[in-house]
Amino acid sequence: MEAKTLVLALFLLLLLSQSSAFPSRKPRVHKPCKRLVFYFHDVIYNGRNSKNATAAIVGAPAWGNRTILANQNHFGDLVVFDDPITLDNNLHSAPVGRAQGIYVYDKKEIFTAWLGFSFVFNSTEHKGSINFAGADPLMNKTRDVSVIGGTGDFFMARGIATLMTDAFEGEVYFRLRVDIRLYECW
Amino acid sequence: MEAKTLVLALFLLLLLSQSSAFPSRKPRVHKPCKRLVFYFHDVIYNGRNSKNATAAIVGAPAWGNRTILANQNHFGDLVVFDDPITLDNNLHSAPVGRAQGIYVYDKKEIFTAWLGFSFVFNSTEHKGSINFAGADPLMNKTRDVSVIGGTGDFFMARGIATLMTDAFEGEVYFRLRVDIRLYECW
Amino acid sequence: MEAKTLVLALFLLLLLSQSSAFPSRKPRVHKPCKRLVFYFHDVIYNGRNSKNATAAIVGAPAWGNRTILANQNHFGDLVVFDDPITLDNNLHSAPVGRAQGIYVYDKKEIFTAWLGFSFVFNSTEHKGSINFAGADPLMNKTRDVSVIGGTGDFFMARGIATLMTDAFEGEVYFRLRVDIRLYECW
Repeated sequence: MEAKTLVLALFLLLLLSQSSAFPSRKPRVHKPCKRLVFYFHDVIYNGRNSKNATAAIVGAPAWGNRTILANQNHFGDLVVFDDPITLDNNLHSAPVGRAQGIYVYDKKEIFTAWLGFSFVFNSTEHKGSINFAGADPLMNKTRDVSVIGGTGDFFMARGIATLMTDAFEGEVYFRLRVDIRLYECW
Repeated sequence: MEAKTLVLALFLLLLLSQSSAFPSRKPRVHKPCKRLVFYFHDVIYNGRNSKNATAAIVGAPAWGNRTILANQNHFGDLVVFDDPITLDNNLHSAPVGRAQGIYVYDKKEIFTAWLGFSFVFNSTEHKGSINFAGADPLMNKTRDVSVIGGTGDFFMARGIATLMTDAFEGEVYFRLRVDIRLYECW
Repeated sequence: MEAKTLVLALFLLLLLSQSSAFPSRKPRVHKPCKRLVFYFHDVIYNGRNSKNATAAIVGAPAWGNRTILANQNHFGDLVVFDDPITLDNNLHSAPVGRAQGIYVYDKKEIFTAWLGFSFVFNSTEHKGSINFAGADPLMNKTRDVSVIGGTGDFFMARGIATLMTDAFEGEVYFRLRVDIRLYECW
């Protein structure tokens, strides 16, 4: 009977050792350790909106210029931005942070972009930054970029951000919904 | 004898706990969890190849322009690209994806570049993207950049990509072989 | 008494299993596995310092140019750099590597920047590269960017780099102190 107890105890211990007390490095079920949803608003300088513009074309192909987005789906236009981040889809809501960085339109046949940027927070809610990079095939309803790092409250974060174009007004304004799922939280 | 059995059982359990059932966070032998080899092809716009060009100079130093690569080893030229990815070294093979992003020539004395880009796949073979960043001292036979993230089939990937210039034709075409070794697979 | 021994043994084993032999994935105390401090020196081309310049404006907003940093806190200026890295704060010390990549000034109301760059080493001390990305609100005494990857000696590194402006001379020279703390070392 003692031996039976021993076997049972060891069996239970083994079971336990596979459970959450000993997390495996590659969880099969990918449950985010943190999830955040934001909106950000991009108003591109077009020669007439100097005051409201949050973004400007700073690079363009030889056939383009820095005031009007180039033809061929803006291929080659490089934009620098400092966009307000809001909790809802209203441009005039109180910003909770800034989305800062660059994007380039990078395909002649269709709208696609490549993004390198950060979310910068300095509020009571969040302090720190989340860094992103990735391709944005922006005609798709949703598309994923990588969370490549974070600082402050988001120290060492990694994950996926799902972008969705929430609004698009001509060539002067767009609003992205960003659904951030972190899978590495420290 | 019962005590001996207990000691033996615990010893075996301890051994087991050090083995693959409980992977250590820092493997001493760095074996990739995934390996992929691709080629991509960059045809730079030079004022006469508008139709075939897959890349264009969109930023240049004060002494340069956006049609001809600048002197001093192209220092300061910033290029946006949307290059076909192929499985072999033939430009005319069926593309399996697109390499999209930017590179900048960043040294006056010798050719070097800095890259931020993505491989974007949407085929039966691969769906998703791999994101890269890093320095490319392109006169070296091989050089390593970082895989900083991935999406879709490459969810949360990290690793190293070894670049090799496979062909170089004047200032209009180059082909890179990219040997991707992922060390974090989810 | 045998049962008591069993309980004690299992209790000890459980204790052991929580200790360093089985590292948890999310250490509560974040101790770097590697720490490095460097300085790098940026001399921006201004039309008169062609020989000494290590950086050049290659993108600018419509209202700017590539020789003089734009007004509105240089918003939209995109700079390519190849800056010497030194161990101390002396520009004329022997460089131990190069800081290469891009930065963009990205806010109209105050100086802030976004950085994508690499430290490239090829000495007896260090061989390999460290890749960085992040926001640099450069009026803050210190600010953190992400170490998003590494190669060679810094294979697969991740961590945080704390930037501090160590000197600033008009619009032609600045020196950053970079305190690199890696939290993932392979």
